[in-house]
Amino acid sequence: MMYRNFDHVGCMELGTVFDLPAEIYGAQASAISDIRASGFPTPNSWALSMDAVRNFSKSVDTNQWPIISLLQSGTLLSVRSSPEKRKWGGPSEMLNVGMNNNVFKTLRDSNTGSVAARLYCTFIQDFAIQTAGSDGDSYNALVKKIVEHPNDDHTSVIEHCFCLFENEVGIPFPQDPVDQLGQVLQSMSRAWESTTSRILREALGAPQDAGLGLLIQEAMLGSIKEEFGVGQAQFVSPVTGATTVHGSYQSHFRGKEMPLIGLDTNPNAADTPELSLEIACPDAFRALASLADRLRKHCHDEMRLEFSIDGSNVFLLDIIPAQRSRRAEISIAVQLKKLGVISRDEALVRVDPESLNEVMHPQIGSRQELRQIAEGIGASPGAASGMAVFSAQSAMALKARGQSAILVSVETSPDDIHGMHSSGGIVTQRGGSNSHAAVVARALGVPCVVGALGLSIESDKKKFTSSDGTEVAEGDVITLDGASGKILWGAVDLAQPELGEDFHEFIQWADSVRTLGIRANADTPHDVELARAFSVDGIGLVRTEHMLFESDRLKIMHELIFESTDIKRQKSLDALLPMLRDDFVEIFSTMKGLPVCIRLLDPPLHEFLPKSNDHIEALASAMKISVSEITEKIEGLQEFNPMLGMRGVRLGITVPAIYDMQARAIFEAVCEVEQRTAADVAPEIMIPLVVTNQEVEFVKTRIAAIAALVEAERGRKLMYSLGVMVETPRAALQAGKIAQNIDFMSFGTNDLTQMVYGLSRDDSGRFMRDYIRLGIFPEDPFDSLDIDGVAKIMTLAIDDARSVKPGLSIGLCGEHGGDTKSVWICHDIGIDYVSCSPFRVPIAKLAAAQAVLIKTRKRKT
Amino acid sequence: MMYRNFDHVGCMELGTVFDLPAEIYGAQASAISDIRASGFPTPNSWALSMDAVRNFSKSVDTNQWPIISLLQSGTLLSVRSSPEKRKWGGPSEMLNVGMNNNVFKTLRDSNTGSVAARLYCTFIQDFAIQTAGSDGDSYNALVKKIVEHPNDDHTSVIEHCFCLFENEVGIPFPQDPVDQLGQVLQSMSRAWESTTSRILREALGAPQDAGLGLLIQEAMLGSIKEEFGVGQAQFVSPVTGATTVHGSYQSHFRGKEMPLIGLDTNPNAADTPELSLEIACPDAFRALASLADRLRKHCHDEMRLEFSIDGSNVFLLDIIPAQRSRRAEISIAVQLKKLGVISRDEALVRVDPESLNEVMHPQIGSRQELRQIAEGIGASPGAASGMAVFSAQSAMALKARGQSAILVSVETSPDDIHGMHSSGGIVTQRGGSNSHAAVVARALGVPCVVGALGLSIESDKKKFTSSDGTEVAEGDVITLDGASGKILWGAVDLAQPELGEDFHEFIQWADSVRTLGIRANADTPHDVELARAFSVDGIGLVRTEHMLFESDRLKIMHELIFESTDIKRQKSLDALLPMLRDDFVEIFSTMKGLPVCIRLLDPPLHEFLPKSNDHIEALASAMKISVSEITEKIEGLQEFNPMLGMRGVRLGITVPAIYDMQARAIFEAVCEVEQRTAADVAPEIMIPLVVTNQEVEFVKTRIAAIAALVEAERGRKLMYSLGVMVETPRAALQAGKIAQNIDFMSFGTNDLTQMVYGLSRDDSGRFMRDYIRLGIFPEDPFDSLDIDGVAKIMTLAIDDARSVKPGLSIGLCGEHGGDTKSVWICHDIGIDYVSCSPFRVPIAKLAAAQAVLIKTRKRKT
Repeated sequence: MMYRNFDHVGCMELGTVFDLPAEIYGAQASAISDIRASGFPTPNSWALSMDAVRNFSKSVDTNQWPIISLLQSGTLLSVRSSPEKRKWGGPSEMLNVGMNNNVFKTLRDSNTGSVAARLYCTFIQDFAIQTAGSDGDSYNALVKKIVEHPNDDHTSVIEHCFCLFENEVGIPFPQDPVDQLGQVLQSMSRAWESTTSRILREALGAPQDAGLGLLIQEAMLGSIKEEFGVGQAQFVSPVTGATTVHGSYQSHFRGKEMPLIGLDTNPNAADTPELSLEIACPDAFRALASLADRLRKHCHDEMRLEFSIDGSNVFLLDIIPAQRSRRAEISIAVQLKKLGVISRDEALVRVDPESLNEVMHPQIGSRQELRQIAEGIGASPGAASGMAVFSAQSAMALKARGQSAILVSVETSPDDIHGMHSSGGIVTQRGGSNSHAAVVARALGVPCVVGALGLSIESDKKKFTSSDGTEVAEGDVITLDGASGKILWGAVDLAQPELGEDFHEFIQWADSVRTLGIRANADTPHDVELARAFSVDGIGLVRTEHMLFESDRLKIMHELIFESTDIKRQKSLDALLPMLRDDFVEIFSTMKGLPVCIRLLDPPLHEFLPKSNDHIEALASAMKISVSEITEKIEGLQEFNPMLGMRGVRLGITVPAIYDMQARAIFEAVCEVEQRTAADVAPEIMIPLVVTNQEVEFVKTRIAAIAALVEAERGRKLMYSLGVMVETPRAALQAGKIAQNIDFMSFGTNDLTQMVYGLSRDDSGRFMRDYIRLGIFPEDPFDSLDIDGVAKIMTLAIDDARSVKPGLSIGLCGEHGGDTKSVWICHDIGIDYVSCSPFRVPIAKLAAAQAVLIKTRKRKT
Repeated sequence: MMYRNFDHVGCMELGTVFDLPAEIYGAQASAISDIRASGFPTPNSWALSMDAVRNFSKSVDTNQWPIISLLQSGTLLSVRSSPEKRKWGGPSEMLNVGMNNNVFKTLRDSNTGSVAARLYCTFIQDFAIQTAGSDGDSYNALVKKIVEHPNDDHTSVIEHCFCLFENEVGIPFPQDPVDQLGQVLQSMSRAWESTTSRILREALGAPQDAGLGLLIQEAMLGSIKEEFGVGQAQFVSPVTGATTVHGSYQSHFRGKEMPLIGLDTNPNAADTPELSLEIACPDAFRALASLADRLRKHCHDEMRLEFSIDGSNVFLLDIIPAQRSRRAEISIAVQLKKLGVISRDEALVRVDPESLNEVMHPQIGSRQELRQIAEGIGASPGAASGMAVFSAQSAMALKARGQSAILVSVETSPDDIHGMHSSGGIVTQRGGSNSHAAVVARALGVPCVVGALGLSIESDKKKFTSSDGTEVAEGDVITLDGASGKILWGAVDLAQPELGEDFHEFIQWADSVRTLGIRANADTPHDVELARAFSVDGIGLVRTEHMLFESDRLKIMHELIFESTDIKRQKSLDALLPMLRDDFVEIFSTMKGLPVCIRLLDPPLHEFLPKSNDHIEALASAMKISVSEITEKIEGLQEFNPMLGMRGVRLGITVPAIYDMQARAIFEAVCEVEQRTAADVAPEIMIPLVVTNQEVEFVKTRIAAIAALVEAERGRKLMYSLGVMVETPRAALQAGKIAQNIDFMSFGTNDLTQMVYGLSRDDSGRFMRDYIRLGIFPEDPFDSLDIDGVAKIMTLAIDDARSVKPGLSIGLCGEHGGDTKSVWICHDIGIDYVSCSPFRVPIAKLAAAQAVLIKTRKRKT
């Protein structure tokens, strides 16, 4: 150890510094410095700072570097990239710098001749590629020749390499090791600054002025007559996270790749069992396993080890967190906690909540050939194969026959709900990730791709054509990946999800940490069952309109809309009442006293209208009126901007009999369930699209009157709370005034985002990708709550409301409730609970736990 | 003056109190008290407080009232309603209470017998009507008999009256004057409390517990042998405000109605010239004129005098501000200022700014029979008659022939702009007062009725049917009143506006007081000329899209939209460039260096698309592509919620070549005008629909690049400022951040209101009337800026922006800029200027002046 700290010349020997800053020397140098200082076996290593490397592009002055004398004495060096973040890449590592005729002779004399020749030949090739931009292909035949004829004298092959090099590069291959090192360092510095590299790393989030550090390590060439080589290993499965050995080893000594244990996990290698490292070099393997064990404790994580073997000694060249799938991520966190390596809280913080999502849906299996025919926006995760169908009816028909359908549609409407529920997957040409199709698909847990603009759909001809010209007719099998947005031809092997014990235990940990309530959005008794299975704290949003889209009810809704007198309309409402009551009875029974928040009818009436000519004709004949009367009425109900039209409480005030009926159905259901189960049921009734306190007062008075009537009829006292959905900016701005009149409020951030941005989620697809590509929006505000706008007005509202009514319950219902960052924001701004699609409940729970832990940590620092 | 203050018994003699509170004794009692104390001649008068009157409904105890002895001694009394506000009404006055056989005899003996008989008979009739709810009709024949036979002995007629009374009421006519007074007071108290009266006055804004005061006055029956009678007079024209005498006089002495001067102003009376008061009783008339003069100074206003004459003496029974039309209101204010009666500031505060609006448009003349066939929302004031047409083309064709058209349409779109400009009036079936039709109509100054839901329009058959069954075919003449929303059959006499000197002088006063800038919205050179005529401070909004709706340009826009390659699109843009440049040259030349704020293209491209099949076919053949390609493209551009879609800066970022072209047209125009006139032109360029600072940066960079190019080409330095239209809540919430990047911001409160409320102005018509009727909205937020929501978020934005950039120019452009209350709010929250339709500029100016004056006054108190 004659070389100590030489950082004053820009080349620092590692070994004593535990926390070498990654922002100056890069991640690799930092990691090696740390483990070397901690006593892990590593080769002698030196770090070159980013500032030093930046200057190399002009000239390299290694004069004062003490490693120069090492080099000159025949030691070979490897040079590795060490950027601040590993994912930013960097030039490939350069091994065995310093190789020349002298070193070659020494190696050949003390070793198998072919090993030395292969190393020399490979180095000349790499040197040509790295420093002169050669493609290096012409050397491959020479390397092959050495491997195939290990016992030949390889002098002529090396000479051949020199010729190739001189021909390509224009100068002789440099024999001076210092000259070699200088050229390597300069070429790596320049490669880092190339335009392509810049663009690539900036796409990965690197800042414009990101630097490259370099790590120089002494090559371990063993005692030459013993085993030596390099490999990588991790002791957990990257796919499942289970304890196993995964990796490979390149034996320079034997001149071949070997599996680490037993047989290689690579099935292609299964036919010809090979000798594994474990069997060939048991001591080295034990050392490796022991190092992995020590590293797990040292790094508090499963690591991938890049190592070299020198006899029975193992040296660590680099360590990187073990590769892991989303599923493995969870298992590894749980196992680390069980091993006592990390705490429960640390395990919770480690896992990206989105990982849970991927785990819960089937995925496209790896290792198969895929033929992509189109691409859209991945809107609801999971993969699905099935026959393409072009109508909800066909989807239902296929499901009835036990077959899987992929519903392909320009867009979807509430009419299609049953068809969507019957489909294995949904593809729409239009719409963004918060379009009707996307929202419903996520709620149903059905994989979905939206905004597949390249499709040309001819629903009437039951076919579509993709932009590459592929025609897909009804019945042709296609596959979609709702995570990546890919649409594939034919059936594809899917990997089914298994929510193991680890998953459930993990979520229980999250439950015990989080303070934010997690409810589910559920619109029908079936959805409520599903939500209950995810152990929710309640139902945060029952969209009562979805109860009305079932076919028998939809028929009555049509009559309700087309009837011309109040008396006839009341008849329709009377017919709906018992149906809705039965739904509420089921919902309250399932939820066993947990809170259930019911939103009164929200969508404009025209969403209930028949759209196809068939439906219109059927309705006309059922109601005994002319088709033209119906089409006229439909036209009359059209709106320029339905999102901003006659819906929500505006409908409730203009046609108050509808809310009256809904309130009665809720109250009668409460009475029935209480009578049957002797338990208390206290529904939360929520008024949508409020903009002013006067609306609340109007509805509140009528609901109180209905409650009084039902109380009188049933001889019971009803408990219920009344609240508003805050989904217009005005309701947020008036929150204090409104709060005086209500028991709770719940932010409807889908609509609130639409209105704060002046942006329809159904129309945003036209420019959202451009906006994100250009960096104008950091992300789609419908995916993740906008902290600078939407969350800002929410904060104003919360402060205003709580200043008037400190204990007011405040929730959020909508897609954002299942998004990690949005949940963190909700926790921070004082929301009491979020409500999301049942399938996103585990994500919300983990995010909520993380919000507590991250906040606590921040407070500590 | 033996009766002083008897208020302890609820009956207060007037004469010493100047400021008798109207909220206790009512407006009439207060007025009379004031002028009586000021020495004006009035009969002896007593005020009954509202509390006292309220108790009369149960019983009346007049025991301690000193007027009782007066009554008993034969003095007759009149009783008048005196509510807190005159407009709240109240029971009709009761004259000559105390009339009985004794008084009758005295009167008859000292006077013309028929006068006494008529007074007695009329009193019995009035008493029956007031106290017993008789309709009184049966007495009319008796009164007539007396008048027709003045010299008869009328005893039998009086007897007949007694019989009638006893038959109807069931008791004999009461001879006791105190009994009479008690009954009158009780019946008036009860009448005030009746349900009908309550509803009527509450509709006029009275609170639920509004009380009725009563005013009792001694009847002036003259010295019996001289002239006596009652009348009313004002010394200004209620129609024009000019100095003249207007009123009437009922001479009891002569038993007939007389004009005040020369001939009655009533043209119906023109054939038979009658003796006027001026000629018959010159002393009394002079006294009356002198009283009017004194009152003008005393009350600082023109008053209507209710008076009685007794010989040559005039007594004031009541004084009320003179009746006046909107036009007269302005002239009176100007004249009062010129007479030195009020100050300039007082004159400005006196006039309702809306009065200016009515003055500027033709009105439906009074005194003609009108046949109303439908009604909608009055959206743009003024009246117009013309032939009904059902297409913009027909309107233009009629205009070309010099005839007036009324365009009748389900709704209008930007396509129709020329047709709308060519129409004398516009009627739409759909839409609210801020629909496209309404906004454009107001901008053009064209009378307009929207939301005429009762119409059934068949444009293809060129006819409509109103809900009363009237069929109106193309060419039939109809009339509309854009103030009241009425649609009338046939042509109607219209009163043309004359903006006299008073009007212009008045507006100049407003200009000298206001601190708020007033600009106009103007979209074409023609509009800019109009705005200049209204002496605006600048143009606050040039909606550049309107330049593109002219037919030659629209054709190029179509090509632009349908071209498939960037190169071809650029060709279309190149063709538009010189056209727009010429427009800007005209605009800048007209405005002579005054600020001009130009908004870059805002509407979604589909607004430019052809709608009718004819247009589509023409376009297809012009572009040599198939109709189906065009319809496909049109369908592809459809949006669910165009208001929240691909428009504004979203378009500017997705298709940046359009803004580039617009910026170049502006800059080239600046160069041309500067070169030609040697004056500086500094346009304000405004980016619409911004939601984030990144959008501003994107556009700012490109515009700067275009400016640099034009500067290089023309060898001049360009001056321009860049700003944003704040019309999304998010832009308001991000105002501070955005302010760093810009020179000005202008609130687009039409869109901002839509988004804050989640309410499309085009769709609000469906429930807005219900909402206002039910009191849920105090008024349509598109008419008057919503102080609790929209203005609140504007205030947040202004504070945020000015905290970053204190001198930032902040405007408001849109319909609210021409609304009085909105202008007041703008002044208060720190807006620098408002911009409105040219025709509303005078209103905005006056409102802005009032904002200064009202604020100053508030500060003083």
